[in-house]
Amino acid sequence: MPYEPSPSRLEAFSDGVIAVIITIMVLEFKVPQANGLAGLRTIVPTLAVYLLSFTFTGIFWVNHHHLVDRLKRVDHLILWANLGFLFCLSLLPFFTNYMVEKRLDSFSVAVYAGLLFTTGVGFTLLQKAISRHLRHVHADPEELALQEAEVRKGKISEAMYLVAIGLAFVRPWLALTDAALVTVLWILPTLGLKHVREKHQQ
Amino acid sequence: MPYEPSPSRLEAFSDGVIAVIITIMVLEFKVPQANGLAGLRTIVPTLAVYLLSFTFTGIFWVNHHHLVDRLKRVDHLILWANLGFLFCLSLLPFFTNYMVEKRLDSFSVAVYAGLLFTTGVGFTLLQKAISRHLRHVHADPEELALQEAEVRKGKISEAMYLVAIGLAFVRPWLALTDAALVTVLWILPTLGLKHVREKHQQ
Amino acid sequence: MPYEPSPSRLEAFSDGVIAVIITIMVLEFKVPQANGLAGLRTIVPTLAVYLLSFTFTGIFWVNHHHLVDRLKRVDHLILWANLGFLFCLSLLPFFTNYMVEKRLDSFSVAVYAGLLFTTGVGFTLLQKAISRHLRHVHADPEELALQEAEVRKGKISEAMYLVAIGLAFVRPWLALTDAALVTVLWILPTLGLKHVREKHQQ
Amino acid sequence: MPYEPSPSRLEAFSDGVIAVIITIMVLEFKVPQANGLAGLRTIVPTLAVYLLSFTFTGIFWVNHHHLVDRLKRVDHLILWANLGFLFCLSLLPFFTNYMVEKRLDSFSVAVYAGLLFTTGVGFTLLQKAISRHLRHVHADPEELALQEAEVRKGKISEAMYLVAIGLAFVRPWLALTDAALVTVLWILPTLGLKHVREKHQQ
Repeated sequence: MPYEPSPSRLEAFSDGVIAVIITIMVLEFKVPQANGLAGLRTIVPTLAVYLLSFTFTGIFWVNHHHLVDRLKRVDHLILWANLGFLFCLSLLPFFTNYMVEKRLDSFSVAVYAGLLFTTGVGFTLLQKAISRHLRHVHADPEELALQEAEVRKGKISEAMYLVAIGLAFVRPWLALTDAALVTVLWILPTLGLKHVREKHQQ
Repeated sequence: MPYEPSPSRLEAFSDGVIAVIITIMVLEFKVPQANGLAGLRTIVPTLAVYLLSFTFTGIFWVNHHHLVDRLKRVDHLILWANLGFLFCLSLLPFFTNYMVEKRLDSFSVAVYAGLLFTTGVGFTLLQKAISRHLRHVHADPEELALQEAEVRKGKISEAMYLVAIGLAFVRPWLALTDAALVTVLWILPTLGLKHVREKHQQ
Repeated sequence: MPYEPSPSRLEAFSDGVIAVIITIMVLEFKVPQANGLAGLRTIVPTLAVYLLSFTFTGIFWVNHHHLVDRLKRVDHLILWANLGFLFCLSLLPFFTNYMVEKRLDSFSVAVYAGLLFTTGVGFTLLQKAISRHLRHVHADPEELALQEAEVRKGKISEAMYLVAIGLAFVRPWLALTDAALVTVLWILPTLGLKHVREKHQQ
Repeated sequence: MPYEPSPSRLEAFSDGVIAVIITIMVLEFKVPQANGLAGLRTIVPTLAVYLLSFTFTGIFWVNHHHLVDRLKRVDHLILWANLGFLFCLSLLPFFTNYMVEKRLDSFSVAVYAGLLFTTGVGFTLLQKAISRHLRHVHADPEELALQEAEVRKGKISEAMYLVAIGLAFVRPWLALTDAALVTVLWILPTLGLKHVREKHQQ
């Protein structure tokens, strides 16, 4: 009596967790002491860092969306790999706040970049668990090729996050720029791809 | 192999994020020091401001509901525009709290009105991404006309939020009244429309 | 082109908001200073009050579940009445915490009972909006009768919450017992009803 | 007119509550005072305990998933048993934090183990409510046998949590190791089972 649930509750649960993660980060912000523009200026770095963490989470949501959409059933390895990935992601609000409270010093930025890297690895492991499942159920080869292309793209991001850990000790803002660049690399091509796709459909 | 996911997970994720935003605002409230009625009175402005932010978020939820319901598929531009809109909205708990802690001074109210304006613009961009998609898939022209009417209505709200930024420097309460007026303008006509609609259906 | 959305997103959104409300209440708890049993004892009232607020919210979730399940479509009045009800409910974590920090003094318990009453009224208004809709779409009369029976039951609860406001000034624990009694009155009969029902089905 | 709702909203609500529980735990973490590695080291126990609580919640989510998937309809006893289970689980963030702030002293670890035990019992009661329902609707006997096997497995976990309460007074880390062992016992066999299953399917 093998039990292989549909991915709908996996999606619902992951959506819930990601929605909470992306939203509670702002709860950590502290209202600046100073009134007026002077006070507001002091939280600009916080807002910028929040935008980075928000976009990072957003990209994973979009990718998770695509990834799970390929599945008709989920096995236990996928359920646990998914929880492992969500665990890494759930540490993001804390380490975003950690970096802000340490005023973006080298060490805290390196730790933050380390978490981005670890979360990326967690996502790669989830992708591998899903690839394995797709091969077992003899999925469409074209689908599998797309899946492999995404795994490769993930590995490039992870390499860039590794570089960011090193850059943090040279100049913290260089590490954050590197991390921001990864998000741009994820968003831009998907938009470009879209235009091509629409032409094909017409 | 163009990939165009259904909007169901976009809905589920947005619902989750909006549900968290609308609920965690109360976590920022501080229990007044004074006991009895005297203490309770001191949090009346906080409660009034929370009601405004709650209603503001509620309106966007209702409108988001209508907007996404028009879609059969979503493209990447819509996914990212939606995340952009949610990012603006996710700042609302922080800036509501910011305004409360600054005791509704001119600057903080202007910043708050600025956020309402920016969130409105974010929603307009999402509407535009959806209009573009609907034109691409040759959607029902009547549907497109309705969509355009909503975009226009959104622009009026944004203009009123812009006015609120200015009013904040004259009298903060005038700015908040202006913002509250926008919410009334959104709620009342939809109720009116409903009665007309029901007559038609009978 | 009348637009009447299905209740699925109303359900999903309300579930999200209620899930957050019911869960974030514990975030307000403060770890007691004292170690061991002595410290744990000091938070027993907090836990008891949390159990009451949790059960109160749970009952509304179950009732909301039943209520919305009757609908095939929702109109704007229902959407807004639902948001109004959720607004009242969203104040529960704050006022639970308020009562705990004021060490269950008469005034704070009365305010808490007042919120339970207001939330009850908010739910009655939502029920009325739904009754109105059901009459408009000429729903099954038996369904309407059930709906009316629930409205009556809601009114009895509200009367008991009103009494609790008064009792708070006599003895705070009497008011809380009264409120706890309402929750028992909601849970027990539904279990009893179930047994009868099952007999009928056999 | 017996009313037996489908389990979809029970799933959605439980997913929401569990998603919030699993995510808000990190909100309780305090950024260490010390900079650099020295500060980070001080939060390693916190992170380890969080990993334990996260995994514990994750296991319950997976089991809840399986359990509710067996249902076509839910009755009131199931609704209330589910709320009872969620109540126990909702206390986890608080008692995780409690144990961390008490620096994992014997008493706090025993209380934490006690909560794990109580949550286990809450889940067993939910399983029993579901078994009862399955017998009433004359479910597939094989399904019922699987259900009973899971109840037995749950009881072994509960016995191990009881042991952990005692162990906490010998050595707190022994109690936590015992609790961690239970999570491993839940995860490993499901992975093993999977491989066997896949062989059968080929």
